[in-house]
Amino acid sequence: MCFTPRHFSWILFMFLLTLQRVAPGGEAGVWPMPRKMSEGSERYALHPQGFSFRYGRDSSAQLGCSVLDAAFRRYFALCFPENTKIFNDDFNIVSFVIVMLCGTCKPKCLFLLILQRYSGLESFSQLIYQDDSNTYYINKTEIEDFPRFQYRGILLDTSRHFLPVRTILKTLDVMAYNKFNVLHWHVVDDPSFPYQSQSFPDLSNKGAFHPQSHVYTQADIRKMVSHARLRGIRIIPEFDSPGHTQSWGKGQPGLLTPCYKGLHPSGTFGPVNPTLSTNYNFMGRLLKEVSTLFPDPYIHLGGDEVDFSCWKSNPDVRMFMKKMGFGTDYGKLGSLYFKNMMNIIETLNKTSVVWQDVFDYHSSPKSLDVVEVWKAGCYMCEVRRVTAAGVRVILASPWYLDQVLIYFCAGSGTEHQKRLLIGGEVCLWGEYVDGTNLAPLLWPRASAAAERLWSDEAQTSSVSQAYPRLAAFRCKLLRRGVQAQPLFVGHCKHEYEDL
Amino acid sequence: MCFTPRHFSWILFMFLLTLQRVAPGGEAGVWPMPRKMSEGSERYALHPQGFSFRYGRDSSAQLGCSVLDAAFRRYFALCFPENTKIFNDDFNIVSFVIVMLCGTCKPKCLFLLILQRYSGLESFSQLIYQDDSNTYYINKTEIEDFPRFQYRGILLDTSRHFLPVRTILKTLDVMAYNKFNVLHWHVVDDPSFPYQSQSFPDLSNKGAFHPQSHVYTQADIRKMVSHARLRGIRIIPEFDSPGHTQSWGKGQPGLLTPCYKGLHPSGTFGPVNPTLSTNYNFMGRLLKEVSTLFPDPYIHLGGDEVDFSCWKSNPDVRMFMKKMGFGTDYGKLGSLYFKNMMNIIETLNKTSVVWQDVFDYHSSPKSLDVVEVWKAGCYMCEVRRVTAAGVRVILASPWYLDQVLIYFCAGSGTEHQKRLLIGGEVCLWGEYVDGTNLAPLLWPRASAAAERLWSDEAQTSSVSQAYPRLAAFRCKLLRRGVQAQPLFVGHCKHEYEDL
Repeated sequence: MCFTPRHFSWILFMFLLTLQRVAPGGEAGVWPMPRKMSEGSERYALHPQGFSFRYGRDSSAQLGCSVLDAAFRRYFALCFPENTKIFNDDFNIVSFVIVMLCGTCKPKCLFLLILQRYSGLESFSQLIYQDDSNTYYINKTEIEDFPRFQYRGILLDTSRHFLPVRTILKTLDVMAYNKFNVLHWHVVDDPSFPYQSQSFPDLSNKGAFHPQSHVYTQADIRKMVSHARLRGIRIIPEFDSPGHTQSWGKGQPGLLTPCYKGLHPSGTFGPVNPTLSTNYNFMGRLLKEVSTLFPDPYIHLGGDEVDFSCWKSNPDVRMFMKKMGFGTDYGKLGSLYFKNMMNIIETLNKTSVVWQDVFDYHSSPKSLDVVEVWKAGCYMCEVRRVTAAGVRVILASPWYLDQVLIYFCAGSGTEHQKRLLIGGEVCLWGEYVDGTNLAPLLWPRASAAAERLWSDEAQTSSVSQAYPRLAAFRCKLLRRGVQAQPLFVGHCKHEYEDL
Repeated sequence: MCFTPRHFSWILFMFLLTLQRVAPGGEAGVWPMPRKMSEGSERYALHPQGFSFRYGRDSSAQLGCSVLDAAFRRYFALCFPENTKIFNDDFNIVSFVIVMLCGTCKPKCLFLLILQRYSGLESFSQLIYQDDSNTYYINKTEIEDFPRFQYRGILLDTSRHFLPVRTILKTLDVMAYNKFNVLHWHVVDDPSFPYQSQSFPDLSNKGAFHPQSHVYTQADIRKMVSHARLRGIRIIPEFDSPGHTQSWGKGQPGLLTPCYKGLHPSGTFGPVNPTLSTNYNFMGRLLKEVSTLFPDPYIHLGGDEVDFSCWKSNPDVRMFMKKMGFGTDYGKLGSLYFKNMMNIIETLNKTSVVWQDVFDYHSSPKSLDVVEVWKAGCYMCEVRRVTAAGVRVILASPWYLDQVLIYFCAGSGTEHQKRLLIGGEVCLWGEYVDGTNLAPLLWPRASAAAERLWSDEAQTSSVSQAYPRLAAFRCKLLRRGVQAQPLFVGHCKHEYEDL
């Protein structure tokens, strides 16, 4: 059996290493911290020339499972950085398989029992270390692990700056090292529209920074989705509306609301015009295309920071409000917009995510699927309000990387409410971020959040205990070529060098 | 004549471009802004295949001037990024030469009159642009230029994190693009001692993060000095003492003052012990070696943040104070230390730079050569105090890159005092900086300081006018492979891509 992870489950995996004993003395540590891990002092030499990952006889997956075959090639390179070329093949997901590892140190073999997926290989690779003579070792280790939250995300913003495809692919690699499993892709926004639509090519022809060099083609997106899938990562696209849509207006006349100054149009435009059925037709066709490209069951509809003032200024909108009996409550107009949008999403058999703003102005907030809480202040109050309405929550507030990182205290409310908090995500907004600085801004700061989202809260509450482990993990990232910035004064055995 | 810049002069250079006219429409702009620049609308096509830098007949430098020959090769690559391999050769310094440029667009030729050095080639290279068909153009341009300050520096700290040699060499390249001309190298400090001394190998054997991989050999340093020289950059080494020397103590027993707790040594150590003549002998030998490796006339002696409490705790130091009649004024002990250090520097025929702390505690501050002002607050008050004493000043306070960048208002005091403010520098301290994030942290933020240090103050006082020019310069840096982070939302024609 060879499958790809679409839905999430609480997962258990375990290493059982029984190997020829060599000598004591490991370093290592695994980031994020596993639920249970006992590392013995017996260490075993691993010889890259004679080492291989093999499928166990009882393994449900066998040779020919392309996802896993590729994972073995990739993790071979990650385990033995000095002895391997980089394999560009894809990899991932081990499901109830036994993997057998044999070194040259026969006759005994290393048995790796993995009761779940990529995280097993990742943790295994982090346990391997080198002594001063560069011999590779692993200590006898037993691990039992599963994630705290099913949703462990990172938001990237490709509208304020264009991120090269290669930068995004590399970020997906490092996400897998950190056991992140969701890329929330904030594709478009006011400054630019880099998504190249087949149905509406003018959106990027006129709305991207550049219609050829600063767009994501459908082929680019398929490549990203595939790259992510093989690493156990979902990509959730966000097409934020009705606000944050200035760039859309260039290629889709009539979409945005003309703002008025007194009796005359001011020449500027506001949010999507919610009074026109043509706009819902357009949205339906665009999102249908998007939902085909992105297999993930979630689509993020945005909905944050809708400025009602332009709607208020427009006489047609005011007339519509009157006709609908909305009075002067423009939240009702926003609700209507989202009801229509969610109908579209429903016909596409998808689940919608919206920013917390929609929950706050929506007239029937209980009808929402998933709400993402992003505002600072008492964000756990907002989480409780949303879960009390029986709606699932993704929490982003504590992990806006332009702010100071704080640890959040999860799970207040009833047990049912706690279960509705499905996870959280790190938001790297794009005002000051592009391919030049994304990696050092993201890593290892997002790694701290990765542990909050994966590991047991009680076991990881001490920052002073986490520090050396995170510093060691950051050195491992350097060894893998990731431009992860330092935590503080210190050094790694292998420093980053831009060659 | 072919010389290298050691001392600085107010410099004039000028382009006179008289070429076959093609069509109007340049973009460009030069960063830092030249004193006078008039760009015409006539543009001229440049064809890389037929383009070359040549020495004019009246040029004082001619073929065989290796510095300039290499500069031509390097700047050819920088002018035509798509048509060239990177030349790794060195380059630089044009002195009263006429350089003739001939494109394929004969019969007319392009004459470039450069009345001074690297800045000429740099400005010239920044004026070249490409149209949509990737043809290179330059507009008819006249430039007259000279720097505002003779000292335009960047401080790098290799003690808190080790910076790979390659990172420093690349930084020197980008410094030249920005017309910075001093690398203030804060080599050693408390956390590590990466300078590999021939006379005292134990200093790095015991004081570096790692005795082999985290040291600068004498060969490394010669390479850096040569690389810098060819780009018109001085390297001023700083061996900060008597404080900030914890890492020195590991390889040089007896150097640091044993701190006492009551009647007994506490086991910790304080600043260099200023009471022992053996320590001055050691410093003399070390600095002699350093002064041979670094040809620059300046050596930075540090002197900041000396904590007197350890000296106060030590009975031998107290007895020495009594003997010298210093009472309880430990500033006098600091003065004595610096008098001895400056005697050493004098015998080496060097000029010493110290941090402002020394000026503040020194009993005869007028005897100092150059003082670097680094503390926040009313730093111009400190500048005035130092220049009033007839001492030269380097100003760093406004450009600590861990703080918000501010523009400083230079030149208060008498004309003589203004002349004593010889320049300023950007300080990139190493607590949170290593090879992973140095480039995006430094560029283009340091470029803003570069303009303050080079350009006319009155012409560059508008931030809104500087913004688009700096954004364009940052795009040029990307094109040259520099990982310069974005200023704000936007895009470059050629985005940075980590390949």
